[in-house]
Amino acid sequence: MKTVTAGILVIGDEVLSGRTQDANTQVLAKALGAVGVQLRESRAIADDAPTIIAAVREMRDRFDYVFTSGGIGPTHDDITAEAVGAAFDAHTGIRDDARALLDAHYGDRINEGRLRMARIPDGASLIDNPISIAPGFRIENVFVMAGVPKIFAAMLDGVVGTLEGGDTVGEVSIPSPRAEGELSAPLAEVDARHPAVSIGSYPRMRPEGGFAVTVVARSADREALAAAEADLRQMLAGLA
Amino acid sequence: MKTVTAGILVIGDEVLSGRTQDANTQVLAKALGAVGVQLRESRAIADDAPTIIAAVREMRDRFDYVFTSGGIGPTHDDITAEAVGAAFDAHTGIRDDARALLDAHYGDRINEGRLRMARIPDGASLIDNPISIAPGFRIENVFVMAGVPKIFAAMLDGVVGTLEGGDTVGEVSIPSPRAEGELSAPLAEVDARHPAVSIGSYPRMRPEGGFAVTVVARSADREALAAAEADLRQMLAGLA
Repeated sequence: MKTVTAGILVIGDEVLSGRTQDANTQVLAKALGAVGVQLRESRAIADDAPTIIAAVREMRDRFDYVFTSGGIGPTHDDITAEAVGAAFDAHTGIRDDARALLDAHYGDRINEGRLRMARIPDGASLIDNPISIAPGFRIENVFVMAGVPKIFAAMLDGVVGTLEGGDTVGEVSIPSPRAEGELSAPLAEVDARHPAVSIGSYPRMRPEGGFAVTVVARSADREALAAAEADLRQMLAGLA
Repeated sequence: MKTVTAGILVIGDEVLSGRTQDANTQVLAKALGAVGVQLRESRAIADDAPTIIAAVREMRDRFDYVFTSGGIGPTHDDITAEAVGAAFDAHTGIRDDARALLDAHYGDRINEGRLRMARIPDGASLIDNPISIAPGFRIENVFVMAGVPKIFAAMLDGVVGTLEGGDTVGEVSIPSPRAEGELSAPLAEVDARHPAVSIGSYPRMRPEGGFAVTVVARSADREALAAAEADLRQMLAGLA
């Protein structure tokens, strides 16, 4: 089994102030999962250079890939590009290839602010932005992308094919009308019988009151997953 | 100005697998903001004891308060209580006060799984759960709460009043029909004139295509915030 891991840094005060809810983690998790990359951490942090630099350094050592979202726009509070550059001790300045994209797109509407979006660390390669043109970039194992969800998703579309994934993890979801507390003993027994499968349970509130549960089994080993699923279904049917 | 900070650890595989989107960070950010506590980091991690222990240790040193959500239910994969206990080198076992709550609630439906929800580290105090009874707990500056959003919010209601907050941060949001790139130079000038105010801009896609922007100013200093708001409104009106 080959395990390839990733983390995401969600950069920007808007998630931490409660203004918005981060949507990029979920999109990334699903896209990475499909190509055999397991998302292991999602960390939302503020637009603060020392915080960004420390988090990038820590996560790029711990994970095979790191993604960032946010902070690469045209305004003074967009400091992600320089901060990621600094995390790699790389100089960040306006680069000709990125500038050419912006010049072609904006024509005479180009200005100093928009040129900020051509700031790319030395040694980085550009990530295509089919929606608003201003590129993201990849430097070593870190992918720096836009925060606006549609642009993040579009950049990701162009990037996932370039990743070297490992084994994909299969997932089986089985809803049950039982309360989670009635399942705990039999669920633990099934779990113990299938060491290659990760089995979890997620309670949910019913609209009409009370709780139901969804049992989720995950494994990169499809044979083991199928065996666990059969065992789980039998256990749940025996309770009903 | 007194600044009080917090972080949240969102514990559980369901956010990182993309099954669900974390909703607790936003609820926490708003509730803390109202009592003068600034959320500085939100970190989603898997149900993995060493990861939880390391993250709790790191965050409790960096922030005044740490909140966790998830992993305190009745099943084998609910390992948050022991992991947080271990982060404080505290023994975690079934505690009489928590057990009494569960016994009273479940009556003869109590079982071994449900008793797992009475596992509380030594030295912790209980957090009330008015919805499903199984308590959270506070140990030093760490608050361990449920992951189900309605229960998380109900536990939080009981907890916010016990926090020692600092200055609250005021926020002003001003939508503009302009593209972010047209605002960058004048916005940077306004920002430079108001060092006590944090000014950011958030692009959003219009349903009909193209981009608009929301300018957000934040400060604990209400006088400085009002001056920045007036300056921003004048700048934006001059562009329109």
